[in-house]
Amino acid sequence: MTTLPVDAPMEAPRGLSGVIVTETRLGDVRGREGFYHYRQYSAVELARHRTFEDVWYLMFHGELPDEEQRGEFLARTAALRPLPADIRDALPAIARSCALSGPLAGLRTALSQTAASAGFRPLYDIGPRQRTEDALAACAKVPVILTALQRIGRGLAPVEPRADLPYAANYLYMLTGEEPDAARTRAIEAYLISTVDHGFNASTFTARTIASTGADLGACLVGAIGALSGPLHGGAPSRALDTLDAIGTPDRIDPWIRERVLAGDRIMGFGHPVYRTEDPRSRMLKGIAREFGGALVDFAVEVERKVVEILAELKPGRELHTNVEFYAGVVMELCGLPRDMFTPTFAAARVVGWSANILEQAEDPKIIRPAARYAGPPAPQPLP
Amino acid sequence: MTTLPVDAPMEAPRGLSGVIVTETRLGDVRGREGFYHYRQYSAVELARHRTFEDVWYLMFHGELPDEEQRGEFLARTAALRPLPADIRDALPAIARSCALSGPLAGLRTALSQTAASAGFRPLYDIGPRQRTEDALAACAKVPVILTALQRIGRGLAPVEPRADLPYAANYLYMLTGEEPDAARTRAIEAYLISTVDHGFNASTFTARTIASTGADLGACLVGAIGALSGPLHGGAPSRALDTLDAIGTPDRIDPWIRERVLAGDRIMGFGHPVYRTEDPRSRMLKGIAREFGGALVDFAVEVERKVVEILAELKPGRELHTNVEFYAGVVMELCGLPRDMFTPTFAAARVVGWSANILEQAEDPKIIRPAARYAGPPAPQPLP
Repeated sequence: MTTLPVDAPMEAPRGLSGVIVTETRLGDVRGREGFYHYRQYSAVELARHRTFEDVWYLMFHGELPDEEQRGEFLARTAALRPLPADIRDALPAIARSCALSGPLAGLRTALSQTAASAGFRPLYDIGPRQRTEDALAACAKVPVILTALQRIGRGLAPVEPRADLPYAANYLYMLTGEEPDAARTRAIEAYLISTVDHGFNASTFTARTIASTGADLGACLVGAIGALSGPLHGGAPSRALDTLDAIGTPDRIDPWIRERVLAGDRIMGFGHPVYRTEDPRSRMLKGIAREFGGALVDFAVEVERKVVEILAELKPGRELHTNVEFYAGVVMELCGLPRDMFTPTFAAARVVGWSANILEQAEDPKIIRPAARYAGPPAPQPLP
Repeated sequence: MTTLPVDAPMEAPRGLSGVIVTETRLGDVRGREGFYHYRQYSAVELARHRTFEDVWYLMFHGELPDEEQRGEFLARTAALRPLPADIRDALPAIARSCALSGPLAGLRTALSQTAASAGFRPLYDIGPRQRTEDALAACAKVPVILTALQRIGRGLAPVEPRADLPYAANYLYMLTGEEPDAARTRAIEAYLISTVDHGFNASTFTARTIASTGADLGACLVGAIGALSGPLHGGAPSRALDTLDAIGTPDRIDPWIRERVLAGDRIMGFGHPVYRTEDPRSRMLKGIAREFGGALVDFAVEVERKVVEILAELKPGRELHTNVEFYAGVVMELCGLPRDMFTPTFAAARVVGWSANILEQAEDPKIIRPAARYAGPPAPQPLP
């Protein structure tokens, strides 16, 4: 017996830009300051100093774990990693089906089946405890699904998750079959942490809209994965790196950038809709990349310098900074991730943020149902 | 190089209720008048006088087809119905996986895999022609997937689609294995048409949000299916019928309703967030139900009468009408649909509306990305 206002419709800016849809206790992006946070802590500080499990725990429970809670949480989530037999059996066909569409389309299918198979129930039909259980299981399995699909696609057998490895190390391990070194593990862990959440982006908003109908957690995550697969959202980390490839050599940087800027083309890896400053994720990832060093890093830094310089010359007043995608691509390349896994790796972290958002949305059962203005010919016209 | 306003955030009502997100030429719901339309025609008139294919064509092309176009469109869409071998092979496992979660969870998985397997590409990377091709293929296959999953779940072999039957007749045929009679076919066709689109509901909005990222059509539809599976959205037609079962006999109507109304409980099948009048879909479906006649119909009509009467007595001024779910449940029951197919049948029609919305959204490439207000403890706090 709900009653909603049908009067006084409100005109929203295109794309709902700047429209506050809800309150959240999960974090915020302060675009002017170049700062973002998870719960009460700086996301960059968390990425520098904490484990992925710590941040996952923080997002779900609101506080960082103590030593004992950390150990329990790792053991609990590691135990949830293995895929049930029916999903393992389905993966080869799913991997074949996404040969054209990419690993995110495969994750979309496999996670959908995993959630159904686990019997995830509508959010409003279960309590917070069961919702959290479902979310932990889904998050724990996403990296396992992704790495299995990627390996099957390369003609390799999936590598079973190892319960003794934390999330980030286990991710690299399942991808390569080898235990990763400490530097690569830390680099990927910092990237994963920095990517857990970032305001009301399209995939997070999609997850919350689906959650608002009371659908099960799998339905919400599958929708979010779909949104992330859109080139305007999660599609760019590998393209930023493709840009570096396209430029090729240091002597070609200047003419290449100049041509693009004069043509008004978008340069992949630069610019962000929210930040008016350097992207704090970019700054952190640049630092990590520099610790690795090498030709790719030098080249990336030089491209960044040149874009800023040429823009200042050709379009004065138009500031443009690297966004997360630019150095994220560099860091993932340095860690040995294949490029088709860049956006999936994003998903392997963001699934924790989506889940925390779904859990929060489920506390406030109100369907998200906006309106549209009809702009076609007058109706009704008589049927011909 | 997009720039969006970060200033002057706008506070939206909870659930974005009444917030106009975009313009559309697809149709409108005029809640005060109890009227809704597809393009320039009354949806109820279309449901009464036209075929499902006519309305599908209208939603995609903006005009009703002439005789020749109708024949071509039917042949073209019927040819798209058969599932590829890899999806047929996957269906038994998918049917098993959704034994607990229901056919919509199975459709979510199977359509995701079908879209990936067909190589659907990001919306903004392909032209309107290819986008329409993808949409036609997806819509044509949804009833085939749903009926196959339902039959496999009952231990029966799927029934191959028949190219000589239109959409509605073929749907009933695939479900039962028998060519349906004219009355049932027309009843289901009218229901399907009346369900094709209905404003910016949560699933349609989800589809458009995902589309706004440029994701492929499969990603958008899979998200929409997830939203529809939420009990606050698509979950009620079978529950309205369960209410009739729970009441049981005519003599129990009065005390049963009275108890619910006094307790302030929601009565399934009554009330709608937009209509302030009788739901025009309900009125039409009630007419169809009455043409069938019989004990169930008499009982449903009596329950409706009693709810309105008791409400007028106990809560004067509080008008409450049946919504689409009430008589939709009755009509689907009369047509012999099993109850676990009520919401999936909704999906088999709505997929056309979602697709039309996705095609329209793709014409306006602007990501949907709202904002949230942080309401947690002040940040940043120093890491412990």
